[in-house]
Amino acid sequence: MTRSDLFAQIQAKQSYLCVGLDTDLRKLPAAVQGRTDPVFEFNRRIIEATHRYAVAYKPNLAFYEALGPRGWVSLQKTLEIIPDDCFTIADAKRGDIGNTSGLYARAFFEPEAAGLNFDSVTVAPYMGRDSVTPFLDFVGKWVILLALTSNPGSADFQGLRIADYELRIENQELNPQSAIRNPHLFEAVLTTSQTWGTPDQLMYVVGATQAEALTRVRELAPEHFLLVPGVGAQGGSLEEVSKFGMNRYCGLLVNASRSILYASSGDDFAEAAGAEARRMQTEMAGYLARYLPT
Amino acid sequence: MTRSDLFAQIQAKQSYLCVGLDTDLRKLPAAVQGRTDPVFEFNRRIIEATHRYAVAYKPNLAFYEALGPRGWVSLQKTLEIIPDDCFTIADAKRGDIGNTSGLYARAFFEPEAAGLNFDSVTVAPYMGRDSVTPFLDFVGKWVILLALTSNPGSADFQGLRIADYELRIENQELNPQSAIRNPHLFEAVLTTSQTWGTPDQLMYVVGATQAEALTRVRELAPEHFLLVPGVGAQGGSLEEVSKFGMNRYCGLLVNASRSILYASSGDDFAEAAGAEARRMQTEMAGYLARYLPT
Repeated sequence: MTRSDLFAQIQAKQSYLCVGLDTDLRKLPAAVQGRTDPVFEFNRRIIEATHRYAVAYKPNLAFYEALGPRGWVSLQKTLEIIPDDCFTIADAKRGDIGNTSGLYARAFFEPEAAGLNFDSVTVAPYMGRDSVTPFLDFVGKWVILLALTSNPGSADFQGLRIADYELRIENQELNPQSAIRNPHLFEAVLTTSQTWGTPDQLMYVVGATQAEALTRVRELAPEHFLLVPGVGAQGGSLEEVSKFGMNRYCGLLVNASRSILYASSGDDFAEAAGAEARRMQTEMAGYLARYLPT
Repeated sequence: MTRSDLFAQIQAKQSYLCVGLDTDLRKLPAAVQGRTDPVFEFNRRIIEATHRYAVAYKPNLAFYEALGPRGWVSLQKTLEIIPDDCFTIADAKRGDIGNTSGLYARAFFEPEAAGLNFDSVTVAPYMGRDSVTPFLDFVGKWVILLALTSNPGSADFQGLRIADYELRIENQELNPQSAIRNPHLFEAVLTTSQTWGTPDQLMYVVGATQAEALTRVRELAPEHFLLVPGVGAQGGSLEEVSKFGMNRYCGLLVNASRSILYASSGDDFAEAAGAEARRMQTEMAGYLARYLPT
């Protein structure tokens, strides 16, 4: 799915909602617990109930890996039923030396390898360029690179200030007016990684709990899509994210997981999930009218 | 396996060799290609040929994930036949927000979850404390945190200098004599993460291609075991790693993957792997005699 395809979906559905499929076998309602593949059955009903209000789905790999081989089968089956008009994200936070990253890319992008055909995968930046470029080598696929995450620990390293980075920005011939003295590590990640791929193949993870940082993120990465977790259970504000993060292609995929999946713990879980997705979509339609640059 | 158990194995085998099971289905010799589970069959013969010379095995998760559910089955079966006197490492480089890291920990540490019972898992530090501590919560298990990796991209972020870190070191009441002005990011990772876990549950990845940095690593982390990839195909020097990295518990697990697994591309692959592992063990025995502090 190209950037303009994605924007077209956002306009058609008046939504930039991503539903996080953090499907926890231990939390599933009785209605699906007895099924042969309860994780898939739960996902199927969630997708049916939400896909009119969502432009993306993001299975969280940990939840499937924690079930062993049968979890991978549930993941394969889930991916197959996600409608073609929805963007798919393997939230895997992978990253390794080049030949190993290449194999992770095959796992998520090549159907003939592991039976998966995701549009994108989340990647951790710590190991640098050659840990990320093997994913970018897949034409038509996307890397979503961690920049500023939504969890408390993001301050530990992402929030550190870099002593020797201003010169590098000048070396890359960016506008010297925009040079930042002692940028945070996440700002260095945003800047350096833009030399690896274009806004048509690279997005960034920026947590909704960091809304005050979105203005800075947009100075450094005006064109890129941002995957924004942290609205909902983690407490981020959808309005602030939309106000400070939206660009002319919308440029936002706002994720909600637990607040949709577990909107009800009863057998009406799918209806409750659909209602919550619809509520978010309605709110998003308002923000698109208000904040999308014309 | 405790730190002293691991040191006892190193002394008994006169080896600190870790064999990396980066088993690539596309590279397997004809002798195993026809088998029902060629990856497992290859691993079985590699383990039989090398376990007298190795103290650890490190399956690289990407190689198994790239095969889908059957790759996970090969991984489960492989883990089951690794002898109990060998330390096992899931080289997965995971890391996510707390509840998700908790599920990754279950996947690798809890046999009743995904059928795996590794002693340790490699973890990426970018997301900070709460992305790592869920792994440390498992009693008797280990985290091996990425510090300074062996690939060229390690310079991109791990090599950046931190502007505001010296004060933090003083705040943590470390010896002010050892304060470093503008430490590299990997030095901040080594220092900060020691407040999260002890040398009995936390190791670090330090690439053999970075041998000149090992002296500094040992200043910052004198007691911790280091997992050292990059000897062999990546060109690091085993002698330099041993000279600069060894502590009183040896404190090193030196990994070799491709140089052992693919020592021969023919049907004598297991014999060739055994011979290469034995050659490395003999070299290591010499370094233990020379460099182990008495």
